Amino acid sequence: MGKVFADISVSLEGFVAGPNPTLEEPLGKDGELLHEWVFKLAAWREPHGRTGGETGPDNDVMKETTANLGAVIMGRKMFSGGQGAWQDDPNPDGWWGDTPPFHVPVFILTHNERETVKKDGGTTFNFVTDGIENALSQAKVAAKDKDIQVAGGASAIQQYMKSGLLDELQIHISPILLHGGTRLFENLEGVKLEKIRVIDSPSVTHIKFKIKK
Amino acid sequence: MGKVFADISVSLEGFVAGPNPTLEEPLGKDGELLHEWVFKLAAWREPHGRTGGETGPDNDVMKETTANLGAVIMGRKMFSGGQGAWQDDPNPDGWWGDTPPFHVPVFILTHNERETVKKDGGTTFNFVTDGIENALSQAKVAAKDKDIQVAGGASAIQQYMKSGLLDELQIHISPILLHGGTRLFENLEGVKLEKIRVIDSPSVTHIKFKIKK
Repeated sequence: MGKVFADISVSLEGFVAGPNPTLEEPLGKDGELLHEWVFKLAAWREPHGRTGGETGPDNDVMKETTANLGAVIMGRKMFSGGQGAWQDDPNPDGWWGDTPPFHVPVFILTHNERETVKKDGGTTFNFVTDGIENALSQAKVAAKDKDIQVAGGASAIQQYMKSGLLDELQIHISPILLHGGTRLFENLEGVKLEKIRVIDSPSVTHIKFKIKK
Repeated sequence: MGKVFADISVSLEGFVAGPNPTLEEPLGKDGELLHEWVFKLAAWREPHGRTGGETGPDNDVMKETTANLGAVIMGRKMFSGGQGAWQDDPNPDGWWGDTPPFHVPVFILTHNERETVKKDGGTTFNFVTDGIENALSQAKVAAKDKDIQVAGGASAIQQYMKSGLLDELQIHISPILLHGGTRLFENLEGVKLEKIRVIDSPSVTHIKFKIKK
């Protein structure tokens, strides 16, 4: 059986996005800075259909994340930035164009039903309206014995942590301040973490935790 | 010339103290847990007049902090937990008894004048009412060419960071959640940090930053 994990970049304050996210700036003001360490990596460029890129400790960490990936779960807000009826969503197919970088089934937590959308390169967008446990059950069927990533946003990760369904969390701490935004470590009463690994690079500090059950 | 540094334990959320600090629980609910890694160390026990204790990476980090220490600066709240007139403060001489563990002059930022208090073992408590810059000037005279530690609380460290007077900040990240309390990384508009060192141990992750000027 694969594991259920989350893996997310945070600022020094623990923000996973900056203030005032918009369609043009989905990660809020300066939120893109959290991910600068990723864009240059070979392991990021490859699933995005590009060649080249840096190798090294950051790349190794990122490669681990996708090496055994069988399915992805994400919140509606992370998927499209919208809410409510899909016909009114200005970004109903998400941020990633015709060939999204997931290459596995993606399960989107939403209150609004919708038929599955099939994209190029193995990604399907499946819309789950009956809660995080059912989304995970469906993801497990799709992933077979591979891993499942709870990609975000913060609220989805928090819900999976609190419900005891998440096995591991890895944060990538960027040494920047965003002065506002969305916090990862909130609404986590009762959650206990055990630090299991730290890898440092000039760009970020990767800290991996097991969620105690 | 010595450097001006801060060195503080934080939870995963970035809290330096838990919720609801009181005289009995000055670090708030569960705030003591942030410092558990320290109490067992030889480098903590020695200035507290005790023998023995653990050595290893945490101890090495802690020894560095005090190795070249010439003076300490702290906020009134950290010193006594109180505010206002000293005659009404239930803890006017601080938390540390007759032989405080500083063994150097300590400068306390306060709005209420008071004569210097001399303790055993080289610690003096000096009360500074004319602002953080003057407190630093006095600390520099006392420290000669040694280092000056801005011990806390969060607000004092933030003020020294924002004013460009702090050279280095080291945080010790405890893998715990406090679910509320006092944040370190707040009120820091315009501050930029450069990560200069990471040391990990089973207990905490030590991350040291240079404050960019």
